[in-house]
Amino acid sequence: MPKLALVRHGQSQWNLENRFTGWWDADLTAKGEAEAKHAGSLLKDAGFAPTQGFTSLQTRAIRTLWIALTEMDRVWLPVEKHWRLNERHYGGLTGLDKKETAEKHGEDQVHVWRRSYDVPPPPMEEGSAYDMSKDPRYHGIDIPATESLKLTLERVLPYWHETIAARLRNGADIVIAAHGNSLRALVKHLFQVEDDKITGVEIPTGNPLLIELGDGLQPTAARYLDGSRATDLPALP
Amino acid sequence: MPKLALVRHGQSQWNLENRFTGWWDADLTAKGEAEAKHAGSLLKDAGFAPTQGFTSLQTRAIRTLWIALTEMDRVWLPVEKHWRLNERHYGGLTGLDKKETAEKHGEDQVHVWRRSYDVPPPPMEEGSAYDMSKDPRYHGIDIPATESLKLTLERVLPYWHETIAARLRNGADIVIAAHGNSLRALVKHLFQVEDDKITGVEIPTGNPLLIELGDGLQPTAARYLDGSRATDLPALP
Repeated sequence: MPKLALVRHGQSQWNLENRFTGWWDADLTAKGEAEAKHAGSLLKDAGFAPTQGFTSLQTRAIRTLWIALTEMDRVWLPVEKHWRLNERHYGGLTGLDKKETAEKHGEDQVHVWRRSYDVPPPPMEEGSAYDMSKDPRYHGIDIPATESLKLTLERVLPYWHETIAARLRNGADIVIAAHGNSLRALVKHLFQVEDDKITGVEIPTGNPLLIELGDGLQPTAARYLDGSRATDLPALP
Repeated sequence: MPKLALVRHGQSQWNLENRFTGWWDADLTAKGEAEAKHAGSLLKDAGFAPTQGFTSLQTRAIRTLWIALTEMDRVWLPVEKHWRLNERHYGGLTGLDKKETAEKHGEDQVHVWRRSYDVPPPPMEEGSAYDMSKDPRYHGIDIPATESLKLTLERVLPYWHETIAARLRNGADIVIAAHGNSLRALVKHLFQVEDDKITGVEIPTGNPLLIELGDGLQPTAARYLDGSRATDLPALP
């Protein structure tokens, strides 16, 4: 039975500053690095020995994976990085302090953007200082101007089906280091969570979610490795 | 014209202890990490913007690449790791202190093993504490018991031809972080160095060798980025 571990990156500089980050390439803080190390030691202690790693094109997720693999004595693992595992694009909110955004747009509107399934924030304005579309890592990729969780899921799933699920079926055990919303999209798909329930599913940072999968890649068991910091898991489908 | 940068990893724990390392997975020392960082900053200052990275399955080369890419703001680069870029396998010498080896086998014999092109050291003994053949990273790979530089070259070149050269022909600019002898094998091939000359070619650590390649992937220009620590380069072919 293939195994899959999902690791949400820990604190980044912009998490610390309480700013909408999205596709901006904020790096981990020292606390975020410690969370990654903790995640690696939990995976190692659980006897989880992945044969393939995946991550996004964003530094905070990539470095989370590197640090965890170092802790697991598996820096040699093959790793694929893909933009489809990036964080949700926060559009015009990118770079804004969350408090200021609430003052500007109202708490209710911000709550809708953050917690609705299919309402994207306003698109990023042209010429924004936070526009990553010219960054060489996205060369040839038509990067979004804004995303709801639904849009995030719609670009995560093709990569899941074509690449990650294919490797699991070939017998790989896989670790994915990614982001709150790209991982939420995977959890929604795997656990068949309803649209109106998924934004209530909060994946803790630096606490690996270890999932055992059946023949159809449906979860047959799932647990957070740090039980003291676990959140409620969706029911097994 | 494609560009290729070769980076030899810096000081490892066993370099420091003056022991034959080969396939043993000694990690970088703090000095080795600083060398990797220096290599990254030299590559960045040279305006070199690789689109693909390659390294071996050995921690000291992998971490050299990670540290250099961090310095270059290119942690998102796709990276492939392959055992064919590993260091030469030192067989039965692995783990031995170089001084003790000389006392045991004689300076002349050790000189032959280190500096001849095609004389491998005695094979690693069965049950050696330094045997890496059961390590999961080498699962399914028939790992050598010992290697001359010639044998090293014979296992490096298929990977060069099938994978690295193919990517260069497709327009990739490439950085390879690897080892004294796997890089020497590449230099021998690229610069068409004679068998009896190649062991005299010493590639300095942490000093990127930046090579511009012509249509047939023959070097048309080559230089070490830290000129103050450069060694003699073979003539352009």
